Amino acid sequence: MKINGNFDKLVPNYLFADVARKTNEFIAANPDKKVIRLGIGDVTLPLAPVVVDAMQRGCEDLRDQKTFKGYPEYEGYDFVRNKISDYYQSFGVKIDADEIFISDGAKSDCGNIGDIFSQDNTVLIPDPVYPVYVDANIMAGRNIIYAPAGEDDNFLPMPDKNVKADIIYLCSPNNPTGAAYNFGQLKEWVEYALENDAVILYDAAYEAFIRDELPRSIYCIDGARECAIELCSLSKTAGFTGVRCGYTVVPKELVRGGKKLHDMWYRRQATKFNGVSWAVQCAAAAVFTPEGQRQCRKNLDYYHENAMLIAKTLDELGIYYTGGKNSPYIWMKCPFNMSSWEFFDYLLSNAAVVGTPGEGFGSCGKGYFRLTSFNSHEKTAEAAERMKDILEFRLNVNS
Amino acid sequence: MKINGNFDKLVPNYLFADVARKTNEFIAANPDKKVIRLGIGDVTLPLAPVVVDAMQRGCEDLRDQKTFKGYPEYEGYDFVRNKISDYYQSFGVKIDADEIFISDGAKSDCGNIGDIFSQDNTVLIPDPVYPVYVDANIMAGRNIIYAPAGEDDNFLPMPDKNVKADIIYLCSPNNPTGAAYNFGQLKEWVEYALENDAVILYDAAYEAFIRDELPRSIYCIDGARECAIELCSLSKTAGFTGVRCGYTVVPKELVRGGKKLHDMWYRRQATKFNGVSWAVQCAAAAVFTPEGQRQCRKNLDYYHENAMLIAKTLDELGIYYTGGKNSPYIWMKCPFNMSSWEFFDYLLSNAAVVGTPGEGFGSCGKGYFRLTSFNSHEKTAEAAERMKDILEFRLNVNS
Repeated sequence: MKINGNFDKLVPNYLFADVARKTNEFIAANPDKKVIRLGIGDVTLPLAPVVVDAMQRGCEDLRDQKTFKGYPEYEGYDFVRNKISDYYQSFGVKIDADEIFISDGAKSDCGNIGDIFSQDNTVLIPDPVYPVYVDANIMAGRNIIYAPAGEDDNFLPMPDKNVKADIIYLCSPNNPTGAAYNFGQLKEWVEYALENDAVILYDAAYEAFIRDELPRSIYCIDGARECAIELCSLSKTAGFTGVRCGYTVVPKELVRGGKKLHDMWYRRQATKFNGVSWAVQCAAAAVFTPEGQRQCRKNLDYYHENAMLIAKTLDELGIYYTGGKNSPYIWMKCPFNMSSWEFFDYLLSNAAVVGTPGEGFGSCGKGYFRLTSFNSHEKTAEAAERMKDILEFRLNVNS
Repeated sequence: MKINGNFDKLVPNYLFADVARKTNEFIAANPDKKVIRLGIGDVTLPLAPVVVDAMQRGCEDLRDQKTFKGYPEYEGYDFVRNKISDYYQSFGVKIDADEIFISDGAKSDCGNIGDIFSQDNTVLIPDPVYPVYVDANIMAGRNIIYAPAGEDDNFLPMPDKNVKADIIYLCSPNNPTGAAYNFGQLKEWVEYALENDAVILYDAAYEAFIRDELPRSIYCIDGARECAIELCSLSKTAGFTGVRCGYTVVPKELVRGGKKLHDMWYRRQATKFNGVSWAVQCAAAAVFTPEGQRQCRKNLDYYHENAMLIAKTLDELGIYYTGGKNSPYIWMKCPFNMSSWEFFDYLLSNAAVVGTPGEGFGSCGKGYFRLTSFNSHEKTAEAAERMKDILEFRLNVNS
């Protein structure tokens, strides 16, 4: 019996464990200080009431034999897929309902989609980025190359014609940088993928945070239906991190090696997945009703106000950052040329504010720091004030 | 870009589609006949009321910021894992809570567990069996060999010392045959696995149907903690086919290639899975309360009565079968040396009863037929009567 030796190549990521440990140590040593967490990567506002109502009605269906639901469709119920198709239509993108696969979340799909591709592919992954793209492909034994991002490109890496990639992960708006591609930039990626016979795996988990005139979907770009799979999630859109529901779009035009990837993904899901909970699908459908959208939008607006508050503070301090306006994340340059962890310690000990060191998201994250908008208005405002207090003077002195 | 070429080796399985098509054709041609379906592979009774109550309370938690739940633990909440640990204890098996991984169902785990093993392993799969073991391993490009079962071993294939397998799938009580291993038989499999450095993937999805003195878990057998992973599900135990929750046990003693498979599976799930819905986990915990067990037992008893009714009829007709007593499935030999599909047609046209041709579960299923206990008492009794009517006379003539 041979185990999967690729697991040996996985690098343990202690980022969040280390953040928690250092924070707890600080709290133990400073019981009087009120620590404010701007490192939260999870939603904090409750679900929209119409969504809870729908989920509870879904539960109630299971109480009675006449309305009981057994095995769901592997690809999701049509009433949910139709609503998501309409949602795409609402921002001008035509996706047929039967191109949409409902799942227990974009993270599962991000990793499992690899099943339809050969191990023998080169995977291009932006740096910094959500770490699971890397780990899932290390496990699969694929060759991984990076698209380094930095201040030159405002953390939006562009294709390099000298690099040959087969599978490309893009995340826009990005986690952790909050940076979002515009139409022209995404068009370059689509052209690169078409020229190189590559497939883009487009993580649109944060599309609902977009407020500027930016693409909400890779399918806003001509040609994307021939080269891209889109992964999306209700986790941040509708606060579903604890409910677990996402969706993946595989257009029927997407053919590689003579096979429709749509059919391959269906076969993968039919073999290694058994669909999403009835009550969860009822909840998901409620998200895409007009009232569901209105209620979810209220939560997004709340997070947005927090993001703008942090952004304003950084503007005032003259600190470089990306994100905020179209994302729950703000990615700031650590001041005074501090490293990510130096700034983490500085911010914690001087302002009792917790954030996330950027190097946890890739080596290009060194010297950067992620703040999130998922705390309350009050605490976010208080944290912003404290940051201003400790940074303003030193920055003025340095400038 | 290269797709996973192993998908080309998958054989399309049209079994249930063909059954549905033929049934619909019969109904269209015979609108007066009342067709009874004994081919149902899904539960039909509603959830236990305490389970629905718990799930609805779980939904309610998400309505309020104070009780809201975000990302769950990858491996499941402790309050669920503790209850499952206690459940194992109730039939004398010691499994620590932190050896239990909660998932969205045993089908997902059955396929995904392959991620921790090398492609370069020989997989031994009983024939006939639940088809997803085969398909998941074809997708992964593994060498598959079969353990053929038949009347000689009462559809309980035993290890062959001349065969070298690395990964062994066992399902007991089996789908589709309903046959269940006894302690001595499972001991032989454990010994084989230990001698061959193999790992048994033990699918215990139907353990709750066991009524005889038979092992409810592979861990009833000494040594299994060093060679077996157990996959279980609430789908049939508690009618969770539409709720989606299962669990997988990876004992800490299970080491291969110097690695704890427990830690590998944790890493796999942490990378490619994000845990199970809060409300679903609340429902799962309710299953394992005393009242939950009592209510779920009522449904199992109902199905059991149906199975015994079919078994009694086959006993009276003198037809060979396995299953029934410890399983919702009855696996019968097709009378008059008919093939599976001949008997399907015969039963449908003469008795308007639908079952499942055995050859859909592997080549050793040829000439056999699966009946299930998931219809109502009334319809099951009526179907049994009809079978008796059409078979009794011919069987008497032939004997």
